[in-house]
Amino acid sequence: MTAPSSPADLVILGGGSGGYAAALRAAELGLSVVLVEKDKLGGTCLHRGCIPTKALLHSGEIADAAREGEQFGVKTTLAGIDMDGVNAYKDGVVSRLYKGLQGLIKSRGITYVEGEGRLVSPTAVAVGDQTYEGRHVLLATGSYARTLPGVEIDGTKVITSDHALRLDRVPASAIVLGGGVIGCEFASAWTSFGVDVTIVEALPHLVPLEDEASSKLLERAFRRRKVGFELGAKVTKVQTTDDGVRVELENGKALEAELLLVAVGRGPVSEGLGYEEAGVTTERGFVLVDEYCRTTVPTISAVGDLIPTLQLAHVGFAEGILVAERLAGLEVRPIDYAGVPRITYSDPEVASVGLTEAQAREKHGEVTTLTYDLAGNGRSQILKTAGAVKLVQAPDGPVVGVHIVGSRVGELIAEAQLIYNWEALPDEVATLIHPHPTQSEAVGEAHLALASKPLHAHS
Amino acid sequence: MTAPSSPADLVILGGGSGGYAAALRAAELGLSVVLVEKDKLGGTCLHRGCIPTKALLHSGEIADAAREGEQFGVKTTLAGIDMDGVNAYKDGVVSRLYKGLQGLIKSRGITYVEGEGRLVSPTAVAVGDQTYEGRHVLLATGSYARTLPGVEIDGTKVITSDHALRLDRVPASAIVLGGGVIGCEFASAWTSFGVDVTIVEALPHLVPLEDEASSKLLERAFRRRKVGFELGAKVTKVQTTDDGVRVELENGKALEAELLLVAVGRGPVSEGLGYEEAGVTTERGFVLVDEYCRTTVPTISAVGDLIPTLQLAHVGFAEGILVAERLAGLEVRPIDYAGVPRITYSDPEVASVGLTEAQAREKHGEVTTLTYDLAGNGRSQILKTAGAVKLVQAPDGPVVGVHIVGSRVGELIAEAQLIYNWEALPDEVATLIHPHPTQSEAVGEAHLALASKPLHAHS
Repeated sequence: MTAPSSPADLVILGGGSGGYAAALRAAELGLSVVLVEKDKLGGTCLHRGCIPTKALLHSGEIADAAREGEQFGVKTTLAGIDMDGVNAYKDGVVSRLYKGLQGLIKSRGITYVEGEGRLVSPTAVAVGDQTYEGRHVLLATGSYARTLPGVEIDGTKVITSDHALRLDRVPASAIVLGGGVIGCEFASAWTSFGVDVTIVEALPHLVPLEDEASSKLLERAFRRRKVGFELGAKVTKVQTTDDGVRVELENGKALEAELLLVAVGRGPVSEGLGYEEAGVTTERGFVLVDEYCRTTVPTISAVGDLIPTLQLAHVGFAEGILVAERLAGLEVRPIDYAGVPRITYSDPEVASVGLTEAQAREKHGEVTTLTYDLAGNGRSQILKTAGAVKLVQAPDGPVVGVHIVGSRVGELIAEAQLIYNWEALPDEVATLIHPHPTQSEAVGEAHLALASKPLHAHS
Repeated sequence: MTAPSSPADLVILGGGSGGYAAALRAAELGLSVVLVEKDKLGGTCLHRGCIPTKALLHSGEIADAAREGEQFGVKTTLAGIDMDGVNAYKDGVVSRLYKGLQGLIKSRGITYVEGEGRLVSPTAVAVGDQTYEGRHVLLATGSYARTLPGVEIDGTKVITSDHALRLDRVPASAIVLGGGVIGCEFASAWTSFGVDVTIVEALPHLVPLEDEASSKLLERAFRRRKVGFELGAKVTKVQTTDDGVRVELENGKALEAELLLVAVGRGPVSEGLGYEEAGVTTERGFVLVDEYCRTTVPTISAVGDLIPTLQLAHVGFAEGILVAERLAGLEVRPIDYAGVPRITYSDPEVASVGLTEAQAREKHGEVTTLTYDLAGNGRSQILKTAGAVKLVQAPDGPVVGVHIVGSRVGELIAEAQLIYNWEALPDEVATLIHPHPTQSEAVGEAHLALASKPLHAHS
């Protein structure tokens, strides 16, 4: 441990995924580390993001299973959702992981400082009266749930994901503003809870960053689940009413519901923290960095949701590790962001790695695509899920995009990620034996078909 | 299509996984194919094995979810199992896949012959009065559920998996003789259905072919689920009683239950089919082959459960494809059987690829192992499952074994299979970014730790 008076090797502002990963790795490599966090170690992901939403979604899965038990010969009934119980379960998961993380930080000798930190020089962070000097400073202050101009968050009828995770009741109905990852995940969990949900998305598709085929499969599945959605729909007016909210759309429609979840993205937390005063260049609040996460100030790096890369916890981990290793003098390579797997944990899940077909066409010209329908996959039939595996292949080259839709397919993208990052040719995957009957077979079958030797697929 | 009078390029005896995969691939490569099946296209795997058992296990998962809903804040009740409903669901899945497979066989112009075939010469199979000549013959007659000497299968109180899949009731109690894959899967599904189950295994562990650490984790989980088991227990006497069965063990214990499932393995179906008369060498009924699935007769190959390789559907697929490609003149490589993923679909699942620690020690000397506990994995915490990922590394070399236990981990072995087969070094996997929060992260974290840069793990 470093005494506060002598400068630490690294002072980190923000204890979320990016910040704590950097702290853990830097400490492991022998650097002295001060980690400053104003709220709770673990940040958005652990306390208000990835983990609690997945707990909600799993409760939703349990509810759906009970609702549909008869289809599987199981005499189940669903009497409703006990929101206190859901929250206790969710908080229990978070708290166990939180304790584990606190233990890790402690065991690696990191100086943990609880309090609001502020950059006061290119090499110092102040927390109250105390100043922590560092040979290097890492900015990792994360993001907050954004809203749209004219849509005021009141925390009760018009809410963000932060409030949505603390709801003590199941609303009868909800409008979800934004059909991206967060919006679709809440829409899915709430639908499972029996909420009447309508998503409003300004772009022409749900999960608009995904391959269009994936968006369409999700839309089809949501239609079957009676999740409402309005696509290409711009909001013209949001007002609260006596018993809820009313949302008017440019197309003339008006929607009413008990509450409105605003899920239009997350903005960087960078205001008033002394970044620009210290010479750090920002753009629309995001701290700009090069491919090694270096800001415009040599002693300052930045990672995670604060910089304009993919806002994903595992990207934060990777960026944090990259910075720690760079500062420790190890050789580091820039992150290939296209090689980072992405998952929307709705039911069905949407998972992808690499390029969409459109991106691949732009980069590689005439690409080859292959779609393997989960109707041919035994395990997916057992789960009664619909969906597909879509592969995008560069001309006579490796697989440059994998896009999967279906229940539980998020776990399949780990293999796809190896395929993408190791630049595998379809035939190299096709020769490998996937276990029967798993959903992962669909990835194998797709590669067999792409290598012109389809097994359980029409040639 | 080939007229029956002129010899086909390939006559296949048996339409299970190995036989039909060979047929599909051979036809695709331009060979004329006759496929002979005495029962139903798809064989054991589709009709009496992999697929229907996984449907049972999924019904079991639905039942467990309803039983434990409260833990997740969901007000569920479980009134029981409707075995007719379970069977309708299971048969529905099988029948959809069966139709799909029939369509594939038809679409590739394969001559399908329903009837009991018999090898009548090194180049001919007879079905009733009809003889099908082939330039080559593939034996793929599969396997049957074996029993022990002195244990007579009566189909009602003493049954095999064939009968177990057709049960029209949920028994109150069951003894499962054999703690291998099949025994553990039935024990798991039945326990979910509310059956009082006791497994009797002669070897010291459940799933005795797996790494001992996996066996121990499964045993711990089964203990928690109140699945009974007697290990290292030899059966001395089995007798039926008025209301069930009584099994006496060498250790002096006696067990009673409503029925006894004999799951002591599967023997080859080779008797009385003319194999030895045609000059095919067999050993304990298994047809002996070289690494290209060639029997001792040049015009005859054999694949699947009939030969003494791993009795898995996906091994049958791979062997069938290998034979088809070899006959079509393509270059083929022998299958690395250690690289074939293996899954026991109990709850928790047990999945592995490569060598166990013991096998690796024998082959490589001082190996390194690393175990990552699923307690550190967010997604596993959400699923409330316990287990671990265990890696076995050759001295300063690649990962040569991956062993995973936990709910749903069967899907994770697809990535592990790439790691094993592509001889990845721990560091090559560690640099890749796994999606958060998935169970696949545990595979990533294990590799990070093995590469001496643990993230969410103590160093």
